[in-house]
Amino acid sequence: MRQFQEELNGLNSALQEMGGLVAQSIHRSVLSLVEKNEDFAHQVLRDEARIDQMEIQIDDMVTSLIAREAPVARDMRFVVVAIKINTDLERMGDMAVGIVERSLALARQPETPGGGDLTEIGNLVESMVLTSLDAFVQRDEQLARKVLASDDGVDLLRNKITKQMIEMMKSDPALVQRALDHILIARRLERIGDHATNIAEDVIFMVKGIDVRHGAAAEA
Amino acid sequence: MRQFQEELNGLNSALQEMGGLVAQSIHRSVLSLVEKNEDFAHQVLRDEARIDQMEIQIDDMVTSLIAREAPVARDMRFVVVAIKINTDLERMGDMAVGIVERSLALARQPETPGGGDLTEIGNLVESMVLTSLDAFVQRDEQLARKVLASDDGVDLLRNKITKQMIEMMKSDPALVQRALDHILIARRLERIGDHATNIAEDVIFMVKGIDVRHGAAAEA
Repeated sequence: MRQFQEELNGLNSALQEMGGLVAQSIHRSVLSLVEKNEDFAHQVLRDEARIDQMEIQIDDMVTSLIAREAPVARDMRFVVVAIKINTDLERMGDMAVGIVERSLALARQPETPGGGDLTEIGNLVESMVLTSLDAFVQRDEQLARKVLASDDGVDLLRNKITKQMIEMMKSDPALVQRALDHILIARRLERIGDHATNIAEDVIFMVKGIDVRHGAAAEA
Repeated sequence: MRQFQEELNGLNSALQEMGGLVAQSIHRSVLSLVEKNEDFAHQVLRDEARIDQMEIQIDDMVTSLIAREAPVARDMRFVVVAIKINTDLERMGDMAVGIVERSLALARQPETPGGGDLTEIGNLVESMVLTSLDAFVQRDEQLARKVLASDDGVDLLRNKITKQMIEMMKSDPALVQRALDHILIARRLERIGDHATNIAEDVIFMVKGIDVRHGAAAEA
């Protein structure tokens, strides 16, 4: 039993460490774009290998934990959720890499207006990621619901950026490629927010044993 | 042991049924766009609820299977992969819904050139989804590698569509919104292909016990 608790704690720490790395990559990916900071871009590319490695390690931890300890009911829910969170975190890391690949391409181009909104959406999804991880580790439903509540803000910002960029493309064909890059980066950030929302929904499932995915029992 | 085998078979069938539904939704989402077929669009929206329901059922099946049977080693890998595949399938379903939402918006607009390429990328990812599921159920590494090999084709088509649409936006501001919609739909299809690739990588992991994610041991 004590051994089991130690393994769960180890799993928690590993997921938090991975979450910290991913949040940092998201942060740096946005800065690499908005501040044209190529050092940040290269750090994100470097940290991807570490994130990928952690995903594999965490899957191994989970697999051997289940095999050795045969957890029941509540703990089993925790373990299933850990598998899902691990996958979500790794894909967020991929999104950050996708962002810096675009920002490296944009680094030598003139400024595109709208960077402020990208910074804002970036900060919002970064805090969603960290809060969703805290919610998991602390098994805290209120924190998880805070993440769900942030989703509308992301949508609003994404729509604002998209509209602004469409206007820019209409007004000047020379801006089409750059404006499209901004739209796609805003979408990648939105997808990171979606992954954080998935984690938060899984946490509520884990804590309450109810399923809030797909709008079911949202107020339960 | 026999009961365990039956539960595994049940899990297989459920994942295949869900995969069939998702593949159908992908197919219909592309037709709803290319043929401006609103009936198909509404069928996709209707089937989303069923797909969501199946995701929850399959998670429950997996959780209780682990709790009751305490599978070891090879079977445990199968179960972890089932959890991941379930999540991938549900998110593919979300992508199909995203596509029909755009296609309903586009249905009353004049034709945009480039529909043929969207059909092609749609057919390709649909077959990737079905093949990845077959690879899982038959534990067939060769089928899984076929899915991985399709990924380049998807990238090529996506790039072709994007370039074509960028040229269109540059040539006529009135086409900006429609061309952007096509780019975003091609990206959604690409993401579906990414999910199929994830499934195929997980299957290889399951069958061989090796990890081909992140380019490791690709030729093992």
